[in-house]
Amino acid sequence: MSTRLTLRLDFDGERRLGPGKVALLEAIRRHGSIAAAGREFGMAYRRAWHLTDELNRMFAEPLIETRGGGRNGGGAVLTDLGEKVVELYRNAERKIRKSTVREIASIENALAPASLPN
Amino acid sequence: MSTRLTLRLDFDGERRLGPGKVALLEAIRRHGSIAAAGREFGMAYRRAWHLTDELNRMFAEPLIETRGGGRNGGGAVLTDLGEKVVELYRNAERKIRKSTVREIASIENALAPASLPN
Repeated sequence: MSTRLTLRLDFDGERRLGPGKVALLEAIRRHGSIAAAGREFGMAYRRAWHLTDELNRMFAEPLIETRGGGRNGGGAVLTDLGEKVVELYRNAERKIRKSTVREIASIENALAPASLPN
Repeated sequence: MSTRLTLRLDFDGERRLGPGKVALLEAIRRHGSIAAAGREFGMAYRRAWHLTDELNRMFAEPLIETRGGGRNGGGAVLTDLGEKVVELYRNAERKIRKSTVREIASIENALAPASLPN
């Protein structure tokens, strides 16, 4: 069974970091563009831009840097801090998978037999 | 900074276990009632019942047992398996907190200074 573990961080009432934002950061790195990254997840440009802006405000320095062409054009890259946050989050995920192997296996063993896929 | 870590388990396409369902199980244990447990989270009875039913079908044996009075009356208790799943999940949470102390601290240190509460 390939249980997927995801980690969500709530820093305070308002600021959160979870799988969605981290995947968006990685997609921006891959595509060099906020719009293209958003499209990968079927996300409206407005939504992708909003999340990017939220991430940039959340940290002491921006995680994403846009280049040229203004809001709707040009490219986007991760800053050093952006790369670092992605790496820390993915490292944390690897560690939680390792540290909870026994608990997850016990929970999996208690599940009902999987129903057949449709 | 008191960052809250939460763990979400996606077993397959359909079946999930996360902080909401586990908190509901604990509330059922506390109140001895699905309705009262739901009320604690401002949840309609229908919704609490639906989650309970989902949890019971998800596992090989029920996690919650209702007693007497039918759907809307009587009490509810956690079964042995219900207790075990709650314990395994909470143990897993403790372990993820321990195993990611360094990563979480590094991410916290990169956050912008917190804005003042409203």
